[in-house]
Amino acid sequence: MLVTSPIPLLDPLFTTDAMRTIFSDHARVQRFLDFEAALARAQARVGVIPKAAVAPIESQCRAESFNIDAIARATALAGNPVIPLVKELTDAVARRDQNAAGFVHWGATSQDVMDTALVLQLRAALDLIESDMTALSEALAHLAETHKRTPMAGRTWLQQALPVTLGLKAAGWLSAIERHRARLHELRARALVLQFGGAAGTLAAFGDRGLDVVAALAEELKLAVPDLPWHAQRDRVAEAATALGLIVGTLGKIARDISLMMQTEVAEAFEPMAAGRGGSSTLPHKRNPVGAAVVLAAATRVPPLVSTMLTAMVQEHERGLGGWHAEWETLPEICMLAGGALAHTREVVVGLDIHAPRLRENLQTTRGLIYAEAVAMALGKHIGRQAAHALVEQACQRAAQEARHLRDVLAEDATVKARLSATELSSLFEPENYLGSAEILVDRVLAKYKKNK
Amino acid sequence: MLVTSPIPLLDPLFTTDAMRTIFSDHARVQRFLDFEAALARAQARVGVIPKAAVAPIESQCRAESFNIDAIARATALAGNPVIPLVKELTDAVARRDQNAAGFVHWGATSQDVMDTALVLQLRAALDLIESDMTALSEALAHLAETHKRTPMAGRTWLQQALPVTLGLKAAGWLSAIERHRARLHELRARALVLQFGGAAGTLAAFGDRGLDVVAALAEELKLAVPDLPWHAQRDRVAEAATALGLIVGTLGKIARDISLMMQTEVAEAFEPMAAGRGGSSTLPHKRNPVGAAVVLAAATRVPPLVSTMLTAMVQEHERGLGGWHAEWETLPEICMLAGGALAHTREVVVGLDIHAPRLRENLQTTRGLIYAEAVAMALGKHIGRQAAHALVEQACQRAAQEARHLRDVLAEDATVKARLSATELSSLFEPENYLGSAEILVDRVLAKYKKNK
Amino acid sequence: MLVTSPIPLLDPLFTTDAMRTIFSDHARVQRFLDFEAALARAQARVGVIPKAAVAPIESQCRAESFNIDAIARATALAGNPVIPLVKELTDAVARRDQNAAGFVHWGATSQDVMDTALVLQLRAALDLIESDMTALSEALAHLAETHKRTPMAGRTWLQQALPVTLGLKAAGWLSAIERHRARLHELRARALVLQFGGAAGTLAAFGDRGLDVVAALAEELKLAVPDLPWHAQRDRVAEAATALGLIVGTLGKIARDISLMMQTEVAEAFEPMAAGRGGSSTLPHKRNPVGAAVVLAAATRVPPLVSTMLTAMVQEHERGLGGWHAEWETLPEICMLAGGALAHTREVVVGLDIHAPRLRENLQTTRGLIYAEAVAMALGKHIGRQAAHALVEQACQRAAQEARHLRDVLAEDATVKARLSATELSSLFEPENYLGSAEILVDRVLAKYKKNK
Amino acid sequence: MLVTSPIPLLDPLFTTDAMRTIFSDHARVQRFLDFEAALARAQARVGVIPKAAVAPIESQCRAESFNIDAIARATALAGNPVIPLVKELTDAVARRDQNAAGFVHWGATSQDVMDTALVLQLRAALDLIESDMTALSEALAHLAETHKRTPMAGRTWLQQALPVTLGLKAAGWLSAIERHRARLHELRARALVLQFGGAAGTLAAFGDRGLDVVAALAEELKLAVPDLPWHAQRDRVAEAATALGLIVGTLGKIARDISLMMQTEVAEAFEPMAAGRGGSSTLPHKRNPVGAAVVLAAATRVPPLVSTMLTAMVQEHERGLGGWHAEWETLPEICMLAGGALAHTREVVVGLDIHAPRLRENLQTTRGLIYAEAVAMALGKHIGRQAAHALVEQACQRAAQEARHLRDVLAEDATVKARLSATELSSLFEPENYLGSAEILVDRVLAKYKKNK
Repeated sequence: MLVTSPIPLLDPLFTTDAMRTIFSDHARVQRFLDFEAALARAQARVGVIPKAAVAPIESQCRAESFNIDAIARATALAGNPVIPLVKELTDAVARRDQNAAGFVHWGATSQDVMDTALVLQLRAALDLIESDMTALSEALAHLAETHKRTPMAGRTWLQQALPVTLGLKAAGWLSAIERHRARLHELRARALVLQFGGAAGTLAAFGDRGLDVVAALAEELKLAVPDLPWHAQRDRVAEAATALGLIVGTLGKIARDISLMMQTEVAEAFEPMAAGRGGSSTLPHKRNPVGAAVVLAAATRVPPLVSTMLTAMVQEHERGLGGWHAEWETLPEICMLAGGALAHTREVVVGLDIHAPRLRENLQTTRGLIYAEAVAMALGKHIGRQAAHALVEQACQRAAQEARHLRDVLAEDATVKARLSATELSSLFEPENYLGSAEILVDRVLAKYKKNK
Repeated sequence: MLVTSPIPLLDPLFTTDAMRTIFSDHARVQRFLDFEAALARAQARVGVIPKAAVAPIESQCRAESFNIDAIARATALAGNPVIPLVKELTDAVARRDQNAAGFVHWGATSQDVMDTALVLQLRAALDLIESDMTALSEALAHLAETHKRTPMAGRTWLQQALPVTLGLKAAGWLSAIERHRARLHELRARALVLQFGGAAGTLAAFGDRGLDVVAALAEELKLAVPDLPWHAQRDRVAEAATALGLIVGTLGKIARDISLMMQTEVAEAFEPMAAGRGGSSTLPHKRNPVGAAVVLAAATRVPPLVSTMLTAMVQEHERGLGGWHAEWETLPEICMLAGGALAHTREVVVGLDIHAPRLRENLQTTRGLIYAEAVAMALGKHIGRQAAHALVEQACQRAAQEARHLRDVLAEDATVKARLSATELSSLFEPENYLGSAEILVDRVLAKYKKNK
Repeated sequence: MLVTSPIPLLDPLFTTDAMRTIFSDHARVQRFLDFEAALARAQARVGVIPKAAVAPIESQCRAESFNIDAIARATALAGNPVIPLVKELTDAVARRDQNAAGFVHWGATSQDVMDTALVLQLRAALDLIESDMTALSEALAHLAETHKRTPMAGRTWLQQALPVTLGLKAAGWLSAIERHRARLHELRARALVLQFGGAAGTLAAFGDRGLDVVAALAEELKLAVPDLPWHAQRDRVAEAATALGLIVGTLGKIARDISLMMQTEVAEAFEPMAAGRGGSSTLPHKRNPVGAAVVLAAATRVPPLVSTMLTAMVQEHERGLGGWHAEWETLPEICMLAGGALAHTREVVVGLDIHAPRLRENLQTTRGLIYAEAVAMALGKHIGRQAAHALVEQACQRAAQEARHLRDVLAEDATVKARLSATELSSLFEPENYLGSAEILVDRVLAKYKKNK
Repeated sequence: MLVTSPIPLLDPLFTTDAMRTIFSDHARVQRFLDFEAALARAQARVGVIPKAAVAPIESQCRAESFNIDAIARATALAGNPVIPLVKELTDAVARRDQNAAGFVHWGATSQDVMDTALVLQLRAALDLIESDMTALSEALAHLAETHKRTPMAGRTWLQQALPVTLGLKAAGWLSAIERHRARLHELRARALVLQFGGAAGTLAAFGDRGLDVVAALAEELKLAVPDLPWHAQRDRVAEAATALGLIVGTLGKIARDISLMMQTEVAEAFEPMAAGRGGSSTLPHKRNPVGAAVVLAAATRVPPLVSTMLTAMVQEHERGLGGWHAEWETLPEICMLAGGALAHTREVVVGLDIHAPRLRENLQTTRGLIYAEAVAMALGKHIGRQAAHALVEQACQRAAQEARHLRDVLAEDATVKARLSATELSSLFEPENYLGSAEILVDRVLAKYKKNK
C-alpha cells in the first residue's frame, strides 16, 4: 500500500521534479523489483529456474503493493532494504504460487539488487542531465554567437583588466560544457553495467551456468555485462560522482560570473524575471539571483560528496563494511544536486536579461585606464616598447591622481602628440580595437560545438 | 492540510526516530511558525505591535494547517520556504483578523526565521545526543571497570604487539567520549542563540526599540541573546558541525575496533544478537556487524559534510549567496547521521557479546613472541639491556623458523637457564605480568568519569 | 650536518616565516630530540635510568648534528622518521658513552615521540595565531569604533538592500574573531598534552613506575598529563584542526567582503598599497587584492584538510594503520595555511584604505530604492502599513521605469504630500535616519571585546 | 645560484624520487623558463618578435641561474612567482642584450606561464604513473593467473561467507586498474593542452597574429592547442585530480585487503620482507605493513584534495581570485601522493609473500559453516530448496552450539543419509567444488588485459 509522498520542502528548489522522481523511495523500490522480475525471466530463459515461476514472480513486482514504511523499519535490523523486501516479495508470490516463491531472488545477493538498481537510476539521471546539457549548450552557443562582438570589461582578480566580449565569456562556458558532454559519454560505457555475482561474486549457486544467467539478465535490463562482479571495486560509481562533480564546478563558475554581473553596482546582466521569483516582501527593488544561489550552493555541497564517494572506495575483501553503505544516499544526492544546478543554469542562461548599454558604460569606469596596454602597444611601435610603457605608466598615475581621463592626459603629452593624431589616439580607447582574437576564438568554439552537436 | 509522511526508506537504518522527527519537514515548518508566534508575543509585550494582534497570529501557527507541498513548490521561485509560508500565514490570519495580519513577521527577515528555527532544531538534537552519550559513557565505564584486568592482545598496525586489557581499550573510548561531552557543553553557549536582525541586521524597522524586541523574543524562545545578528558570520553553526564531526570520528574508531574483533578469525567480541539482526538468508552462520556498518558509513560521510559547513562560511556582506543555502540540508544531515551512529554505538556497546576465552587464546597466536619485550626487560636486569635484546631477538627468529614456542626455545638457552628459573621464565609468558600501568590508567579514567558524571 | 634549506617557493606567499620555521624539517627533528632529551632527564629524575646517562644523551640532541637526508631516506623503509633518528642518536651517544646509549628512547614508542613533537609544534603555532588574532581584533575594534556612524550600502544576495554602517560590518567580523579566541583557549587544555605510553599504551616497560615517568616528562616539556595515552584516540589533534578551520572560515568571509568592496565598480575599500604589492607589469591601473587571494585560497584548502583529520580518526586498535600517517603532513599544513591567512588578514585590516566618499556615493546607486522600506515605515504611521507598502511599491516601479529618483516620484504623490513635508520626505533618504540599532550593536561588541581583552 | 635542496623528511615515504623531482621548486621554475624560451622561439618563428631576440633569451632560461629564495620572497608581494621571475629574467637578458630584453614574456600573462608549466609537470607525472600502472597490472595478472584455482575464504562485512579464489581477488584488482588506464588515456587529450591567452584571454597584444603564436608555441612545447584559453575554466586540471583520486581509491582497496590478510590472526599474505622494512626495535616479531600504511594514508588524504580542486573551479570572470591559487600546491600534492601510493602498491604486489597453507587452513575456521550454502543447494535438488534450507539452517545452529563440524552434524541426519553418500557429503566441504564461475571470470579479465596490453 503506497501513500503518496509529500514533496520534501526543499527539493523543488534544489533539484528537479524528474530527478526527484528517479531517486524517490518508490522508484528505488520499483528498481529493486525490476531486478527481481528480470532475474526470474532471465533464469527461466536459460533454464535455471522453471518457466512457470516467472509469471507469479513478475506479477508481484510492483512497488505499489509494498508497505515502504514497514520495509524501512525492517531495514534497520537487516542492514539493507533488499532483505526485507525480498522476504515480503517471496511471501506475496507464495500466496499465489508456493512453488514459484522458491525461485525468488535465486542465487542473488542483496548487493546485486541494490547496485543494479542504482545503475538503473543513474542511467535515467544521466539521460536527464545530458538532455539539459544539450539545451544549455544550445543557449550558450546562441549567446556566444549573438554577442561575439559585444565588448565588455574583462576582469581578473575581480578588477577590470582589458576589454573582452560577452561572446567570449559565453564561449568559455560553452567549451567547458562540451567537454563535460564528452566525459559523460565515456563514463556510460564503464558505469552503466550490470551487477550480478551472488554472495561472494563467484556465481557459485549456478554451477557452470553463472555467465549464461549474467548475459540474459543484462539483456533483460539493457545493461552492459561487466568483466566480473564489482561488489568491492567501486570505481564505476565513484567515476559517475566525479563526472557530475566536474559539471557542477563549471555551473558554479557560470553562476558566480552571472551573480557578479548582477550586482547593483555592476548591473550588466540579470536572471530572468518571473512572477514571485527572487522577490522580497519589504524591498521592492530587490531582484535576488535565486538561480545563482542554488547553483553556488550545489557547487559548495557536491565536491565534499565526491570526496565521500572516493573515500568510500576502500572496501574490504569481497563486500565491504561501511564504505558501501556510505554510497547509498551520497550518489543520489550528487545526482539530484547536479540535476537541480543544471536546470537552474539552463533557465538562467536561456532567459538571461542583458543590459547592453551598461556593458559599455562599465568600460568607462576606469576613465580609460583599461586601455593602457592598448596605448602602450601602439606607442611602442614608434618609440620602443619600454619607453612607451614608462610613458603610459606615468600618464596613468597622473590620470588617477587628477581624476581625469587617461586619453586627456595623454593628449597633452608632447611625445604622444608627435606620433599619434587625435583620431588615432581616440581610436585606442574604443574597445573594439583591442579585442585581439576574441571573435575567432568564439568562432572556433562554435564550429566545434556544431560539429559535435 | 498535512499528509502523514512515509518513513524515508533508509532513515531507520541511518538515524533514530527521534532525530528524524526533529528534522522532518513538518517540524521544520512548525519551528518557523513557533518563531512567528513568539515574535508576535514578544513585540506585543514591548509595545511594538498591538496586544490584540497576538491571539489571531498565534492561533494560526500550527504546521498542520499548511500545505507543505504547496509551500515546497513556491520555495522554488521564492528562494526560501519562509517567504511563501509567511504569505500563507498572513492570509490565514487575515481571514480571521485583517488588522492582525498586518503585524505578521513584523520587521523580520526570512533568515531570522530560518536560522532561529535551525537553532531550535539543533537544541533538540543536542539534547538527544547528550542523553545518548551519557548512556554510552555509562556502558563504557561499566565495560572498563569489569574488564580492567582482562588481558587481550594489543595490536598496532593491525599486528599483535603487546598484551593490553579490554578495560584499557574501553577506557580509551570512554576518555574520548567524555572530552566530547565537554565540547558540547562549551558549544551550547555559542550556538544556541537567537537570530534576529531584520533585512540587513540593523533592526532598522524598530527605530530604537530593536534591542527590546530581541530581548523579549529570546526570552520567549528560551535562547541566549547574541551580541549582534550573525546572518553572515556562520562560525556558530559551523562549530556545531565540527563538534559532531569529532564525535562521529570517535564512534567510527570504536566501530572499527569492534568490527575487527568480530572478524571470523578473531572472534573476540560480537554485536548483540537480535532476531533478524545482521542475518543472511542463505548464509546461516553469518552475523553481520550492522551497527558497525552504519557507524563506519557515518564516519565516512560526516567529515566531508563538515568540510561543506566550513567552506560555506565564506558568505558575502550582510547576507550571503549560496553559502547560506548550502547549510540548509547539510547541518541536519550531520545531526541525523551523528544521532544514528551514536544510537547504534550505544546499542552495540551495551549489548557487546565478549568471548572471554577467545581473548586469551588469541594471546597464544604468536607462540610467545608477543612477550618478547617482557623477556628482554627481565633478562636485561641480569645481563644488560643490549645483550638481552640481542639474545631474545635471535631466539625469536629461531622460534619463528622452527615453529616452536619462544619459551621453549629460550628454556634451552644456557644464558637464560643461568639467570632465570623455569618458573620465572614461565611467568614472563603470563599476560598479567606485563600490563604496566594498564589498571591504574583505567582507574584514572573512571575516577574522572565519576567526578564529571 | 645541516644544509640550510632554501625557502619553498610558495611559502612566503601562503604562510609566515615564523610558521614555516615551526614546521620545518629541522624544527621537527629538533622537537623529536627535545623529547628524547627530556625523557632521559625525567627518567633519571625518578630513578628509572642512571643519572650519568643524561648528559651524554642530552649533548647529542641537536638537530644540526644529524643528516636529515639520510634520515629521510631511511624513513621510507622504517615507516616513520623516529626509528632511523633514534638509531642515529643511539650510535652518536654510544660513541661518547656506551652505557648511556642503552638508555636512549627507553620504554618509548615512535608514536610517543612523533605525537609529542607535534604537540610542541602545535603549541608554538597556537601562540603565533593567538598573538596575530589579538592584533587583528584590535584593528577590527578600531575600525568598528571609527566607523560606527559611517553609512554604507548593506548588501544581501549581492544586491543592495538597506543602509548599514562600516562599523557594524567590522563589528560582525570582530565578534566572530573573539569567539574563535575563546575556542582556542578551550582547545589548549585538551590538545596540549603529553603523549607517552610505550608500544601499546600500557607503559609496560616501567613496571609500576610508568606514571612517575609520565609526570616527570610532562613537567620537563611543560605539557599537561593526559588521563591515558591517546595513540589511537585522535580527537585532541582533530579538534585543533577544526578550531583552525573555523578561524579560516571567518577570515575567508572577511577577505570575500573586502575583495567585493575593492571591485573596480564598487571601489569602497582597498588593500594597503605597498611597493610591488599586487601590481601588474602591463596593467598600470591594476591593484590586485593579493591578501584576499591568499586568504580565499586558504578558505578553499583548509576545510577539506579538516575533513582529512576527521576521517583519519578511525584508527585501529592500540595504534592505527594509515590514519595516523595521514595526519603527519595535514595538521602542519592546516597550521601554516591558517597562520598565513591570518597574517594577511591582519595586514589588510590594519592598512585598509577606505574611500569614504565612495561609501556614500554607492548609496545613491539605486536612486533612492534602498530607502523604500524606510519610507514605507514612515508613511505607515499615517495611512496604515499595508496601504503604505502598496503606495511605495508602485512608486518604486515607476521610479525604475522612468529612471527617476524615488524621492522625486513620491514628492509628486498627493497622499505623500498630504502627510509628509518636503523636509520630512527628504530626511527619509538620509542613511543616518534608517540605521536602527547599528550603533548600539557596535558598542555592545566593543564593550565585550574590551572586557575580554 | 642554486642550493641543492635537502630531501623533505617525509617525501621518500610518501612519494617517489621521480615524482618529487618533477614537482620540486627547481623543476617548477625550470618549467616556467621552458615556457619563456619556447615563447621566444615561437614568436620569432611567426615573426612577432625579431629572430635575434631568441638566443639571448633562451640562454638565460636555466633555473640554476636564479636565486629561488629571492623569488620566493618576492612572490609574497607580487602574488605569484612568475612576476618576480620574469623581472629577474628580463634583467639577466638585458645584461646581455638590451633589445632582446624587451621581448621577454611578450604578450603573456603570469597565468599562461604557471598553467602551462603545471601541464608540463602533469605530463611527466602521468608518464610515471602510467608506467607504474602497467607494471602493477602485469604483477596483478601474474597473481591472478597463478592463483586462479587457489581457494581461500571469501569475506563480506568482514565475516567469512563463501570460498573464493585468490586469483579472483587479484582479477578484481586488475580489472579496476585497467579501467583507470583507460581513464588516463582519455584524460590526456583534455588536460595536456597549452595555456596562452594574455591578460584577459583575448591574445590582444598580437592583433590578428594571436592564433599563429598559439600554434607555434604549442608545437614548441609538444602540447595540444585548446579551442580557447582556459584561465577560468578549470575542468581540465580538475579532471586530472579526479582521475588520480579514483586510482588512489582502488589502491586503498588493495592495501586494505592485503593489510587484513596480513593480520596476525589471519596471516595469509605479507608485504615483501626487506632489511629494515617495517621492523620494530623492541618487538622482534613485528612485520609492519609499511606499504599499506602509506597507501591507506594516501587514500585518506587524496579525496579531500580532489574536493579542493572541484571547489576551486568556481573562479571569477576572466581570471579568478583565490580559486586559482588554491590549485597551486593541491594538484602537485595529489600527483605526489598518487605516485607514492602506486609505487608502494606495485612493490607490495610484486613481492607479495603468500602463505598458501594458511589460505586453506582459514577455510576451516568456521567448522564447515562456510559450505552451508553449498550443502543446501545440493540437498535442494533432492528435497526441494526450502526444505533443504531449513534442514541446513538447523544443522548449522546445532554445529555452532555443540562446537562440532557441520559435516559431522549432517552426517547423522537421516534425511541427509538417505540422499547423499558419505563421499558425496564430504565433497561438498571441498572449496574447489563450490567456486562457481570464479576461474572463467579470471580468464575473462586476463583475456581483456592481454588484449589491451
